[in-house]
Order: sequence, then C-alpha cells, then structure tokens
Amino acid sequence: MFVILSRNMARVAIVEACRFVVECLHTAGANRDSAEQQARLLIQADRLGHPGDGVNRLEYYVNDIISGACEPNNKPLILKETASTAWVDAKNVLGATASNFAMDIAIAKAKATGVGWVVVKGSNHNGMAGFWAQKAAEEGLIGLAFTNAQPVMAPTRSKQAALGTNPIAMVAPASCGESFYLDMSTTAVDMGTIDMHRRNGECLKHGWAQGPNGMETLDPEKAYHTKRLYPLGGEEATGGYKGYGLAAMVEVLCGVSAGSRYGCHLKEWKLESDGTPHDIGHCFVAVNPNCFAPGFGDRLADCIQQWRDLDPVDGNLPVLAPGDKEKIMACQSDKSGTVYYVKQQIESSNCLAKRLQVKPMEPVKEAC
Amino acid sequence: MFVILSRNMARVAIVEACRFVVECLHTAGANRDSAEQQARLLIQADRLGHPGDGVNRLEYYVNDIISGACEPNNKPLILKETASTAWVDAKNVLGATASNFAMDIAIAKAKATGVGWVVVKGSNHNGMAGFWAQKAAEEGLIGLAFTNAQPVMAPTRSKQAALGTNPIAMVAPASCGESFYLDMSTTAVDMGTIDMHRRNGECLKHGWAQGPNGMETLDPEKAYHTKRLYPLGGEEATGGYKGYGLAAMVEVLCGVSAGSRYGCHLKEWKLESDGTPHDIGHCFVAVNPNCFAPGFGDRLADCIQQWRDLDPVDGNLPVLAPGDKEKIMACQSDKSGTVYYVKQQIESSNCLAKRLQVKPMEPVKEAC
Repeated sequence: MFVILSRNMARVAIVEACRFVVECLHTAGANRDSAEQQARLLIQADRLGHPGDGVNRLEYYVNDIISGACEPNNKPLILKETASTAWVDAKNVLGATASNFAMDIAIAKAKATGVGWVVVKGSNHNGMAGFWAQKAAEEGLIGLAFTNAQPVMAPTRSKQAALGTNPIAMVAPASCGESFYLDMSTTAVDMGTIDMHRRNGECLKHGWAQGPNGMETLDPEKAYHTKRLYPLGGEEATGGYKGYGLAAMVEVLCGVSAGSRYGCHLKEWKLESDGTPHDIGHCFVAVNPNCFAPGFGDRLADCIQQWRDLDPVDGNLPVLAPGDKEKIMACQSDKSGTVYYVKQQIESSNCLAKRLQVKPMEPVKEAC
Repeated sequence: MFVILSRNMARVAIVEACRFVVECLHTAGANRDSAEQQARLLIQADRLGHPGDGVNRLEYYVNDIISGACEPNNKPLILKETASTAWVDAKNVLGATASNFAMDIAIAKAKATGVGWVVVKGSNHNGMAGFWAQKAAEEGLIGLAFTNAQPVMAPTRSKQAALGTNPIAMVAPASCGESFYLDMSTTAVDMGTIDMHRRNGECLKHGWAQGPNGMETLDPEKAYHTKRLYPLGGEEATGGYKGYGLAAMVEVLCGVSAGSRYGCHLKEWKLESDGTPHDIGHCFVAVNPNCFAPGFGDRLADCIQQWRDLDPVDGNLPVLAPGDKEKIMACQSDKSGTVYYVKQQIESSNCLAKRLQVKPMEPVKEAC
C-alpha cells in the first residue's frame, strides 16, 4: 500500500502542484476561480492514489480550453427546478466548476427537503466521482455522484463499445472521524490500467478486456489497441451483464436524464482537441441521513469496523472497508505535504510549462 | 431463452397459482389483502423467470407467519417524514405489504417534490427488488429499490460472510412501451444457482464462490456447504472489491440508514423458522424524470435500441438491453396465461397444501 519512493518517482509539495495546475489553466484561458476548482480536483486524485484522474489529465483540459472545446469562463445555469431537483446546463465550463455548482444545489435541497437530485448537461470531464460525493459528506449528508463517459466498454455479447467506465460514487459520514467512501468505475479496470500493463509487459487478468475478434484477450498490446473493456464481472457467465446493467443505469441517470450526449454519441477524449464540445452528463444526489433512524454515524462506524475485523484469507492482507486504500494514501501524502509523480509525469509537465511559458512544477529536492 | 416444456416441468394458470399462494398465506394467518399483495410479488417472479424469488419461497413465508417471526396483520407506520423522505417501521409485516406501503409514499413524494426517498426497518424478505422499482415506473417515474439480506457474501480478502446478495434495482419508463429494467444482486450468482449446479453435477464458473479455506472453488458441493459467495467481479484482481463496495453501499442505504439489523447481525432465512423477527432494512427511491430534460422517454427508447443493435460477438446471441430476458419470459407466460414450475415444486406445494389443508395448486392438463 505505501508508496516507496523509487528512482522513477518524485515528490512535489501539494501547494506547488496546485500552483502549477492553476497557472497552466489560467494561462490557457480559465479565470482564476475555475482554475483553482479544477486544480483541487486533480491534486486530490493524486493525493488519494488515483493518478489517472490527476495532473496526468492537465494537458487534456488545457488543450480543450485553447481549442474552444471547453469554455471555462461561462456561467452554469439552472434550467428547471423543483423543491428537490434541478436540471443544470453547465454551459460547457470545466467539469469541476459544473460539478461544484450542481452539488452545491443538491446539498442545499437535501438540507431543505431531505434529498437533492441534480442532473447536468453540457459539461466536461469531472475527474474522480468520489470527490463530488465527498463534498456532500462534508456537510453531514450521504453524497452520490455519477457521470457518463466516452464509450470504451462493450456491453455483454457485443463487439462494439457503447458505454463508458461510467462511475458510481457514494460517500457517507460516520462517527469517530470515519466515513464510507466508494468510488468505482463499472468496468473491471480502466484503459489506464491496460496501458500500464502494456508498458510493463504484464499479462492482463481475466474479465478485463476484449481482443479485436470480440473474445477475451490477456495480451495488453491487443487490448490497448482494441479499446473495448469488459463491464465489471467480465464475460456473461461470470456476471458481466450486471456490470453492463450498472453502466447502463448510470447512463440513464446522466445522459438520458440530462439530455446531453449519451452512449455511442459521446466523443473520445483525445490529447489533441478538435474544438467541439464533449457535452457530458452528470448526476449528483445528496440525502440527509438524519431524516431516518437516529445514530446513523455510529452504526456506519460499527459497520466499517465489522468489515475490517473479518477473518482474512491471507493474514498479510487485512480486509479493508471501502475507501481504506484511499485513506492510507491520503494520510501518507498529508504527513509529508507532498504528492508523488512518476518522472515521466514531471517531464511532460515541464514540456507543458515550456509551451505555456509558466514556471515548471518543482519537485522536492530529496537528500541522497 | 424460451422455456421448453420438459417432462420435468408443469404449467399452472397464473390465476390458479395466485389462488394457491393467497390461500396458503391466509390459512397461515395473514389477512386476505396482505396475502394477495405477497402473491402478486411471488407470481411475478415466476412470470419473469426468477423462480428463486417465486412460489419456491412460499413455505418460508408460511412458516415465518405460523412461528410468529412475521406478523402479517400489523400496520406499517411512518416514524419520521420530510417533504421528500420518510422513515418507516414495517412493524414486521410481510415484505410485500411493507414495500407497497413504502414505495407508495416515495411515489407520492416524487410527484410533489421531484424525489421520494423512503427507508424501512423491521421488515421481512421482499422478493424481487425489481418489482418495487417497477411500481414507480408504472407511474411514469424512475424507480430504485434496494434491500439488505442475510450474510452469504465474503467481502474481498475475507473468509467470513458479512453481507447479503444485496440487490440493486432500477426501472425507468421509455417511449413505445419500452422500459429500462435492471434487477441484480451484487454477488455474481445467488445460493440458488450454486444449489442448481450441485443438483445437476455441474462445475461452477470462476468468481462465483469460496471453498472452506477461503480460496475459490469450482466444486458445487463444497461451495454449497461453505455458503460464501464472491461479490460481483470475483476475486480482488478481477474487480471483486467493486462488487463488495456495491453490496456495502446497499447496506448503508438500507440497514444502516433504517436502524434495522445490518451486516453480520442479519439472521439466516431458514425453512424452519425460529420465531424471532428478521428486522430487514429496505430503501425505495422514486424520481420524476420530467424534472429534467424534456423527451426522457424518447431518449431512453433510443438508448435501449442502440444496445440491441450492437454488433454481436456470436451471431446467434443478440445483444440484449437490461430487462430483455425478463420481457421475453413474461411475454411467453402471458401468451398462455400460465407460469412454469419444475415438478419438484409442484410436489412440495402439494405437501404444503396438505399440511395447511388448502386445495392443491392444479397444473394445466397438457395434451399428450
């Protein structure tokens, strides 16, 4: 679980990483407030050990802004509203701006009526879904967040991709500083994991990806180029149709409800932006647990401890509660006030810095 | 997909199956209204091809009533209420009575505020979760239903069971008579599937069940006696921790929110009832899609058709939309006005009829 600082890794102070992301987005054209919201989202992903949603994505956002595919200085708009719901047009701002706007509405409505349910169209990639669910949990609420995404998953029996990694996140506050934290894609893994295996020359696991003929492949090279992941559960016999069902459910709650692009209509998120909007759909829900049985936080803390105390199959691998991995990573990050990057990330950030003429991200100087 | 009427199967008219279930539950002690609600739930499961939640379970309900573990003639009660939420004490009535009561509240609140979110404690087994989500969809709403259940699933890395098959159901109405129908347990399979493989002497699939030492087994006999299913996704490497996370999420929404039993505290549902209550927790949600982008039903119908039109890996196995299997079974059942049972089911129903002194369930006389 713990990051061993290898030769291939560098540490960067959290404040320095934030400074760098803000300057890049601001130089690309985003106002300072939007750039700061997006920076907090990306750095949090790196802090929790999810680099695929972290600074790794910065150049994509920058290019979307420069090409006009994303319009970070617009203002999101409520199109329709009831006591417990809102329909938002993100107006093509950055995913973090849209999501903060929408989850804030969900939180306010949950405080007033018990539940807030907000659906967003016209948005952009909004990073870790858990970040948005967490925002509600910080207000004492149960938070849920969903988003659609570019098609990379082949529904059961299909040899065409038709749905994204469509994540489901739920975060809930428990007593004793504990929380329930679930943030998962509805595929077994994401394309980043396939790519990592390809770079390391490692075989894939069963239930991860299709080869070009639609049958499972364990060859990372084939899987990387085919770009068709299995849904969670893998093939039909091992329950993959349930992962497909979950991804489809997320699409109904996001794209279909919001009237954004959905399913096959979502466009690929490429490093070279073509200047057309992504029009992604999100869904944010906040629920006040105080509306139900008193003592929610205590029961949740007890439940979390029940899971951790279970007898493990392997004594060296303790049973974890959902979110424990992220908490261990965050704790390690916070102790040093730094986030970890592979050297290639530092190098590509330096190229971006040069291109945008901003001060490069400066790693911590390690004692030899 | 289609049921071939084998020598081992019998057809029973739907009205006759209903009559039988109502008489059994009524004779055991339930008032006629509660018995009828429960009968509709069980027969619907048989109609949709989910016999594990159908008449197969009747004797369990009967025994729970006779032993006093379930009190079918109580009245469920709203304990706490806001504009969009309610906390319900089911007062230990049958699962169908409790669920109808709670989903009706969720529907009414969704019509008034956009969302209804109702959590129930003190309940009993409530059958197919999809039945309850469907109830909201029939009112033009998106319906969601969750329930906790007796522990039969071992969280990732654990060799103890700590969560149930904890289902997630979502049903949403689409144009052209279509609907989105997802009803899935968060394990790869349920214990009924393990039992069926045991009876047929068939090997299990990967990612289904643990053996006594906590490692995967493909031996149905070992799996049946160990009673520890894997979460959806199987082992940790193939994404099983996500299935575990989903089951845990359902527990937070049900038992932890409702203040019913949760996790390891839920008792086993045995044919011989010990007379103590199950105190199961449910969660029902209804959301009005008209609160968001106009044209929800059209987009959903288009999305469903997109999935069905995908290029299949095997030309003989078309890609299905979530719920298509159930729709095909229901269509076949409705054409003949009958449901199908294996002969052993007819025989055990006859034993129950004799014990309760009610008229046995009469199969259709087939032409030779």
